[in-house]
Amino acid sequence: MTNTPSPRDRDNSEQDQFLTILSREDALARFEAALFPRAVPGEQRPLADALGCALAEDVTAPIDVPPFDRSNVDGFAVRSADLASAGEASPARVMLNDEVIACGTAPTRPVLSGTATPIATGGPVPRGADAVVMVEHTQPAGHRAIDIRRAASPGQFVSYAGSDIARGEALLRAGTIIGSREIGILAACGIADVAVARRPRVAIMSTGDELVQPGHALRPAAIYDTNGAIVTAAITENGGEAKFLGAVADDEAQLESAMREALATSDMLVLSGGTSKGAGDVSHRIISRLGKPGIIAHGVALKPGKPLCLAVCDRKPVIILPGFPTSAMFTFHDMIVPVLRRMAGLPPRSDAKVNARVPVRIASELGRTEFVMVSLVEGADGLIAYPTGKGSGAITSFAQADGFLRIDVLADQMPAGSEAEVTLFTPHVRVPDLVIVGSHCTGLDLVTAPLSHAGLTVRSIAVGSLGGLSAAKRGECDFAPIHLFDEKTGTYNTPYLTEGLELVPGWRRMQGIVFRKGDQRFEGLNAEGAVRAALADPACIMVNRNQGAGTRILIDRLLGGARPDGYWNQPRSHNAVAAAVAQQRADWGMTIAPVAHASNLGFIPFAEEHYDFALVKARKQRPAVQAFLDALASKVGRAALAHAGFRPA
Amino acid sequence: MTNTPSPRDRDNSEQDQFLTILSREDALARFEAALFPRAVPGEQRPLADALGCALAEDVTAPIDVPPFDRSNVDGFAVRSADLASAGEASPARVMLNDEVIACGTAPTRPVLSGTATPIATGGPVPRGADAVVMVEHTQPAGHRAIDIRRAASPGQFVSYAGSDIARGEALLRAGTIIGSREIGILAACGIADVAVARRPRVAIMSTGDELVQPGHALRPAAIYDTNGAIVTAAITENGGEAKFLGAVADDEAQLESAMREALATSDMLVLSGGTSKGAGDVSHRIISRLGKPGIIAHGVALKPGKPLCLAVCDRKPVIILPGFPTSAMFTFHDMIVPVLRRMAGLPPRSDAKVNARVPVRIASELGRTEFVMVSLVEGADGLIAYPTGKGSGAITSFAQADGFLRIDVLADQMPAGSEAEVTLFTPHVRVPDLVIVGSHCTGLDLVTAPLSHAGLTVRSIAVGSLGGLSAAKRGECDFAPIHLFDEKTGTYNTPYLTEGLELVPGWRRMQGIVFRKGDQRFEGLNAEGAVRAALADPACIMVNRNQGAGTRILIDRLLGGARPDGYWNQPRSHNAVAAAVAQQRADWGMTIAPVAHASNLGFIPFAEEHYDFALVKARKQRPAVQAFLDALASKVGRAALAHAGFRPA
Repeated sequence: MTNTPSPRDRDNSEQDQFLTILSREDALARFEAALFPRAVPGEQRPLADALGCALAEDVTAPIDVPPFDRSNVDGFAVRSADLASAGEASPARVMLNDEVIACGTAPTRPVLSGTATPIATGGPVPRGADAVVMVEHTQPAGHRAIDIRRAASPGQFVSYAGSDIARGEALLRAGTIIGSREIGILAACGIADVAVARRPRVAIMSTGDELVQPGHALRPAAIYDTNGAIVTAAITENGGEAKFLGAVADDEAQLESAMREALATSDMLVLSGGTSKGAGDVSHRIISRLGKPGIIAHGVALKPGKPLCLAVCDRKPVIILPGFPTSAMFTFHDMIVPVLRRMAGLPPRSDAKVNARVPVRIASELGRTEFVMVSLVEGADGLIAYPTGKGSGAITSFAQADGFLRIDVLADQMPAGSEAEVTLFTPHVRVPDLVIVGSHCTGLDLVTAPLSHAGLTVRSIAVGSLGGLSAAKRGECDFAPIHLFDEKTGTYNTPYLTEGLELVPGWRRMQGIVFRKGDQRFEGLNAEGAVRAALADPACIMVNRNQGAGTRILIDRLLGGARPDGYWNQPRSHNAVAAAVAQQRADWGMTIAPVAHASNLGFIPFAEEHYDFALVKARKQRPAVQAFLDALASKVGRAALAHAGFRPA
Repeated sequence: MTNTPSPRDRDNSEQDQFLTILSREDALARFEAALFPRAVPGEQRPLADALGCALAEDVTAPIDVPPFDRSNVDGFAVRSADLASAGEASPARVMLNDEVIACGTAPTRPVLSGTATPIATGGPVPRGADAVVMVEHTQPAGHRAIDIRRAASPGQFVSYAGSDIARGEALLRAGTIIGSREIGILAACGIADVAVARRPRVAIMSTGDELVQPGHALRPAAIYDTNGAIVTAAITENGGEAKFLGAVADDEAQLESAMREALATSDMLVLSGGTSKGAGDVSHRIISRLGKPGIIAHGVALKPGKPLCLAVCDRKPVIILPGFPTSAMFTFHDMIVPVLRRMAGLPPRSDAKVNARVPVRIASELGRTEFVMVSLVEGADGLIAYPTGKGSGAITSFAQADGFLRIDVLADQMPAGSEAEVTLFTPHVRVPDLVIVGSHCTGLDLVTAPLSHAGLTVRSIAVGSLGGLSAAKRGECDFAPIHLFDEKTGTYNTPYLTEGLELVPGWRRMQGIVFRKGDQRFEGLNAEGAVRAALADPACIMVNRNQGAGTRILIDRLLGGARPDGYWNQPRSHNAVAAAVAQQRADWGMTIAPVAHASNLGFIPFAEEHYDFALVKARKQRPAVQAFLDALASKVGRAALAHAGFRPA
């Protein structure tokens, strides 16, 4: 529910009631102060349904475990004093009592001096006995007696009542999360129901007319609702009972009614999408009518996540998350999870942290605490943290990162080479077995698939050919996929290699002109002809590629100095070029054949690009590198590449 | 389903078909060889129900995300070339196109040179435009035009189609566990259903007539079924769909029919209880009839866990876990979880490991790989691993341990002071805030309760007074609760303190004679009289305490050299004494008043025991120690102690 600005609205924006941007710490402190302390409501649950819940109360052991003095072996319950002089050469003979204590059998006869009672593992030691001898250390002596060839110390092979758990001892404390081990302790005491913290009911709503739910067809200009699903899942992961109510249209009356209804049956309401400060942003107006104290913070000096809105309406938290997925998820984890877990009676999440070096300078905005999502790879002397770099509008920035680092509110950058503390999203860093940094290609996914299926972890960080080459020179990756054209020699890639790097041939990608099928300006022409035709039509708009891309060099060569409309539209990927043409934002551009075909575009082949690998020689013998080289050379790998439209070198 | 041995059976045991004890590694290798490779069956699930499941197939991006070139700000879509010379002093004036691109609105008009189109965050960049300028950097110039005061670089504030996720790129690999982040990635691509590995259906059965399910009353000689609940929960935690079928009686026909039925509808069957090698052990006979190849290993050179039985019947694993809870859980995690996770399409569990010093010698059995459950505490120079020490018959050995260390099959001990690698049961070590090592008392739970509720973690390791004192001298705990009587001075505790320790007075515990209410031999007597009466009756059996216990000194004093029946029955706790008397295994003994009252026994007070704390001076200023001292001195703490029958010092 972002809204369309118009310059006419700008003067009114001064009247906006939420001008104050709070610091992250201040916002969280005010939010928590408005919500806590509060009692965590409990509910009784059968043990089997309590897995993952938090205990609402301390649990004290109601019985001794074991409940009686128990035999730990199969053997005979005896009086140790009777065996004081027993040995291999001088066995002690004892008479057998006329009962057998199986597991679950209560003894009925005492063990008198000079007697023994057969007893199974787990059986209760009878009155009079003070030790158990193992059956292996005895010998039958007729049907009514045995010889015992070893002395027994008092208490031998006996587990005394209460030695595992003593009646009255504190077993588990309130707030403990019930895992299988806790279930074991409770079951051992005979506890079948426990008081657990009731999961807070959290209603989730997406707002925005542009949102389409996954599984439905995407309209032009629409996008899939990502935040609804991810927030719902993250609430479940953090102890809430999530109820996703779908996307609600941008209509104030309709939205208010939906919010009131959701809040009436929930303990918390989370909206995502409606955080624009534009005049049409109705969510916060509605919130101010929902209950006291209302909005606590609208705008937090936090990046990503500035437009976060925190409110409390009649003791219930109401949150509007930013619309961008990474902003939404980051603020959710940073600001909402602590509150949710506390409401759920759960302990704070314990985040694992590691130290890592930042290989590149990271710019930051003064005055906002900035959190940078990073991927971790193993360098020569420790971990290296690569910014994922796609920005807060990208879901993958958050979802494919290993963790994040923090840049202080008063810093305007983190210099290259800095040591930073990285908070991990999952408890373990699993450093990938194979690290690929450079230009990405869907062909690469085909080659690495068998490695993934064999349990090797592959990390591919897309930073372009030149960025990959730098990483390879610094030894931060196993190899860099590159497709760099050297105009001087007219060759690809080899001229760019330096000491310590070796070229591994990859595959050829046919580049050519794309256009919408049926566009009569281009049908039947070759590349040079197509560009001539485009330049001849003033209504014809092109889409270019970014400076530095190999494809850009080819385009400039074909244009021969012309700068037609669209020349400055310079996306960074083959896919973006195809999308621009398919969606009629441009009429022609240059991309690779597989991408053109996937978009069902017309394609005029022009020149092959060499997509090769700059291999870090020092890492060549690593098993994952060898596995990659094997997969690249394998018949099945080459066949998969060819099938996808690439030509293996 | 352990069974009662009799010496008569011993000769037949040689005919047992499962005499070969395999090494742990050999057993696991044979088990896995009989089960794998196998296909992981998949099933289609809605995204919302896929949380925690493992992906069954690779997922490739079906669309570009974003699907179009998207504006990242509220502002105006422009041609960057139009603004080449724009600046604060020389704004560029452009005419506004007659449309407004909201989020979700497909543009219908191109941005021609000299024009701009208002666009909201998330809106698709129209044809012709190659950049977006923020509304803040513009000024209205009448109703149909704006002035722009900054140049714009091509692509400014534009996220190109496919820049987040490119169509055709490998999104997630088979085997990935679906968390909220993966759900976000899938939703962003519009994927509403995913193929996930179907959770293996695992049937769990307990065997043993002695077992009572939690929630039901415990019969004499019976125990609660711990393994059923804990195994069921652990299967859920490791990707299985667990179905607990309850306890099945020890009857061969009935058990066979139950096992056949369970196996027919499950992918795996886990039994616990029936691993005795006694003649009555029917489970393995049944297994040999259930399918090929049948039993793979019966008996593994593993401690705890030797009696583990591994079988495969017609491609389905059938496992009989040892009956002792810690043996059952340890073998389950060590030998069964890897197989279960592989069947569930999950990656191997990644266990975190830490190094720690072992403060005491640990004996081990030559010829068996021994795993020792340990609790971790922070020492002066690193972590210290205390063996939990209650043995495999105790559920708490496993459930309250932080992890385990391994003693090699060829070692007969681990010497005190060894450095050992500890595998953690949970990813993080949370070193406790307060460490108490020594003699346990339920009064201690009352004093530490407020600390736990304030979020401080308290670890109490019960090793007796003398063991606690040693730990305190080594600086391994904050304090040691002790109740040590010095016969020379006739005083408690103080004479035992050494340099670096300080006595903190705790409370007094009244010790006295316990007997069953109504036992006319003891009613109305004082302690001396009661002991005289007991000694006068040859049928009267006592229960003693272990050598070294303060209570033992009192008993010996009262007995004056007599050694009546039961003298050598020497349990190590107050609770065991009460249980022996309550269950008629003994007629009298000495325990403390609160324990006697909890067991509803008659109690004759004799002498107060001083339960005090040997505080490690160097750790006195720690916040948790201060919090403990505060709680001990607090009115509410003293009242709780008094209410429970203790007398605060």
